Amino acid sequence: MELVTEDNITELAARRWGTAHDPRTKELMTALVRHLHDFAREVRLTEPEWMAAIQWLTRTGQISDEKREEFILASDVLGLSMLVVQMNHAFEKDATPATVLGPFHIDGSPELDFGGDMSDGVEGAPLYVSGTVRSLDGSPVAGALLDVWQADADGSYESQLPEVDEARLRAKYITRADGTYCVRTIAPKGYSVPMDGPVGDLISRTDISHYRPAHVHFLVNAAGHEPLITHLFQEGAQYLDSDVVFGTKQELVVTFEPHEPGPTPDGGESAVPWVEARYDFVLQPVG
Amino acid sequence: MELVTEDNITELAARRWGTAHDPRTKELMTALVRHLHDFAREVRLTEPEWMAAIQWLTRTGQISDEKREEFILASDVLGLSMLVVQMNHAFEKDATPATVLGPFHIDGSPELDFGGDMSDGVEGAPLYVSGTVRSLDGSPVAGALLDVWQADADGSYESQLPEVDEARLRAKYITRADGTYCVRTIAPKGYSVPMDGPVGDLISRTDISHYRPAHVHFLVNAAGHEPLITHLFQEGAQYLDSDVVFGTKQELVVTFEPHEPGPTPDGGESAVPWVEARYDFVLQPVG
Ligand SMILES: [Fe+2]
Ligand SMILES: [Fe+2]
Repeated sequence: MELVTEDNITELAARRWGTAHDPRTKELMTALVRHLHDFAREVRLTEPEWMAAIQWLTRTGQISDEKREEFILASDVLGLSMLVVQMNHAFEKDATPATVLGPFHIDGSPELDFGGDMSDGVEGAPLYVSGTVRSLDGSPVAGALLDVWQADADGSYESQLPEVDEARLRAKYITRADGTYCVRTIAPKGYSVPMDGPVGDLISRTDISHYRPAHVHFLVNAAGHEPLITHLFQEGAQYLDSDVVFGTKQELVVTFEPHEPGPTPDGGESAVPWVEARYDFVLQPVG
Repeated sequence: MELVTEDNITELAARRWGTAHDPRTKELMTALVRHLHDFAREVRLTEPEWMAAIQWLTRTGQISDEKREEFILASDVLGLSMLVVQMNHAFEKDATPATVLGPFHIDGSPELDFGGDMSDGVEGAPLYVSGTVRSLDGSPVAGALLDVWQADADGSYESQLPEVDEARLRAKYITRADGTYCVRTIAPKGYSVPMDGPVGDLISRTDISHYRPAHVHFLVNAAGHEPLITHLFQEGAQYLDSDVVFGTKQELVVTFEPHEPGPTPDGGESAVPWVEARYDFVLQPVG
């Protein structure tokens, strides 16, 4: 019988999880055991701390539901989500960089035409985001699908609201033959991540700013190109250099230009002051 | 604005969590960030794997309730619980070693007299566990509190059963003036950890045995001594060298000796065959 000691427990546990049938599971589980034990050894984890961690993990699972993904938030604020994005989407320098998906994307948004208004009825300054989707060689990409979503003026995404009859501040747009797109929405505002759960409890014990700078989310899919998960951030917005989820990149910061009432990029006319953001997405070809 | 890259994200995240107000929280959180990122980098964690991990963690929290602590089980089967026990209870060589608490302890068990039957009505071969609680110098410890619990013949602890009116297979015993104790219970059997949750799903993808060898749990508290969380294991029991939670120690393995009907250690008499285990607990003095 092999005696379990402080010295051999990590080796024993790694060896056992090394019996995983699938080679990748074996690699993941043995590495997990080693890093988890290394952490516990380095900090000399105490039993009350261990129990606090167990309870924190349990609460984090239990506060999660269809509307709330507290473990994604935890991964986000620990910089893990952004690290995973960086490792898996190392595009060419001139391609639009990826950033975190975040926990608020909803599948199945309705498709709108060029200039269609995804903010229908929601309060805010009209914002037109327009430009061209291009491939890395500069050629426009027709038929690219832009899945767009954002928070309202209170920082709430549709998935955080109790009852919504139809899609709210989210829509899909398809680029025209010349690669152009036009999104009509409202100017986004910075918002706080949810602070009433276990992740908020942890953040409260630090000086970490719990805000994200104003941004609009984009998921861009086009044949022959890598899917692009990204945001556009408003230049000059508060929290740009302290984004709680580490999602900000200089390349994704765009000017939000205020306009007087008048003609808009969709070929229409605004009776009230409006805001314009122009951005050309550059997609990385597959392979 | 500091650009986030694969190279600087870990440093940025560690620096941010380094603003924790309490020095220990700062130490724990910065070490956690570094080890978590090291793990993700080493295995080049993919996005589907990351999402699978998020969902596994969420399910692990959500299957937990007052009767089930799936995160403790996860910690147990990864060898983390036993590592934490080892680091925090490094007793002298001659003291009874500690092992995992496990998720099934219930507070407030009823106090029974010397030889009192904690198995009242539960099927199984009568087992008497008796001996003396001693200090490291060999002197008997009077008034030590032994909190004892175990599984039934189906491997179920009281906390796993749907409805129980009174304490089932758990009780407290206090040592007499000469340090002696006597527990009347039933012979324990080996059992499987719960396999119908996320931890069981993981174990099923390996050759890991999901059983624990037959054992009785003890929590021993006595004035002037370190609390002792331990088990007694049945010598020769199945799974002794493959305990799924890494809890077995040679020093905790005791002979379960079968007896014909006749006098028992509590001064009574058994009309049926019974089993005897003798064990002297040796407690580590405080400081
Ligand atoms: Fe967002
Ligand atoms: Fe047990």
